[in-house]
Amino acid sequence: MSKLVLLRHGQSQWNLENLFTGWWDVDLSEKGIEEAKNAGKLLKQAGIQFDQAYTSVLTRAIRTLHFALEGSEQVWVPETKSWRLNERHYGDLQGQNKQEAAEKWGDEQVHIWRRSYDVLPPLQPTDAKYSIAHDRRYADLDPKQVPQGENLKICLERVMPFWEDHIAPDLLKGKNVIIAAHGNSLRALTKYLENISDEDILDLEIATGQPIVYDLDQDLKVTHKELLK
Amino acid sequence: MSKLVLLRHGQSQWNLENLFTGWWDVDLSEKGIEEAKNAGKLLKQAGIQFDQAYTSVLTRAIRTLHFALEGSEQVWVPETKSWRLNERHYGDLQGQNKQEAAEKWGDEQVHIWRRSYDVLPPLQPTDAKYSIAHDRRYADLDPKQVPQGENLKICLERVMPFWEDHIAPDLLKGKNVIIAAHGNSLRALTKYLENISDEDILDLEIATGQPIVYDLDQDLKVTHKELLK
Repeated sequence: MSKLVLLRHGQSQWNLENLFTGWWDVDLSEKGIEEAKNAGKLLKQAGIQFDQAYTSVLTRAIRTLHFALEGSEQVWVPETKSWRLNERHYGDLQGQNKQEAAEKWGDEQVHIWRRSYDVLPPLQPTDAKYSIAHDRRYADLDPKQVPQGENLKICLERVMPFWEDHIAPDLLKGKNVIIAAHGNSLRALTKYLENISDEDILDLEIATGQPIVYDLDQDLKVTHKELLK
Repeated sequence: MSKLVLLRHGQSQWNLENLFTGWWDVDLSEKGIEEAKNAGKLLKQAGIQFDQAYTSVLTRAIRTLHFALEGSEQVWVPETKSWRLNERHYGDLQGQNKQEAAEKWGDEQVHIWRRSYDVLPPLQPTDAKYSIAHDRRYADLDPKQVPQGENLKICLERVMPFWEDHIAPDLLKGKNVIIAAHGNSLRALTKYLENISDEDILDLEIATGQPIVYDLDQDLKVTHKELLK
């Protein structure tokens, strides 16, 4: 039996400013740092000893992981970063104010982009201000893998190979794993772990900075779920 | 051609208290945190873009790396931790005050333990207060690999396989690499890189928090060395 902890990063500067963020690399806000430190305290109280940590290649998730490991006194745990755990790419909405986007395209359209499972947001041109097409952290990817916009379905489809290749094998060896990531990459994992339908997953909100602890059996079935507080 | 940066961790709490530290996992002091942040600024000014980061499994080096990557705005760089980059294990001296040790064993004996290349310090019993024999971060090692005391020669001999297996291959691919580690594991690498004799290496001091930048050619020969300040 092993433990899997999902941890959504603390508030980022753009969460605070109400901007669509996606793959744009925004740092934590002061509040986000406090949330991440608090996650560390909760993990220490729970006494969970990790063997492996995973995170995205985005600063807000990586720093959340670091604060969580510092707070639980296990900074030394091996850490692997992958773009596959990144937030959903928000297409041409990245960098836009959510209120202004609603005024530009209408509330209903923006609601569909935010909340539908398989409708794509407007794609982002590679020369857009907030494009990550030329970010060197993605230089080793097949250019076709670098998205210009994702829905939750596409996000899930690129998260799952990382689960299969890295996270599941660790858990099957009995390792305790922490994943510090984002609202939508964690939704994707939650959908899979808890067998949630395409419709119901859209209503699932994952709180920032609150560790979700799963106990998994030898077939990686969830035997217990607990939100630390 | 590739760049290799060596970075010794900032002051630790036990540096401050004048205790032998070795493999004991002591955190940075406030001054050490400032030194690490300053290293980040220096790396940002120098504009060095890393492809890979290495560090030990000791908190003071890992946090120094994190501050350095944060300050130079490349938190996303892949990071690998290894016990092979740990500080020299100081045997039964770990946890002892340096002044008290000199009073107990005599100045000359302590000087020999600190400064000779191949004399071992008194070995540490596995039940000693500051033994790491049962630390779970070393649980996967052959117990014979977990030292009870090291001199610089032994430290160098366990650092080099990591250089050969991980760091050198990266550099040969043209990657820029940062290693955040410790006075003696970095001395070992410096001895190798600069072909320093067993005698001369003992006089080499590596400053805390000051990045040392090597330019290496395709045979990993040093073509340029610069201390950032």
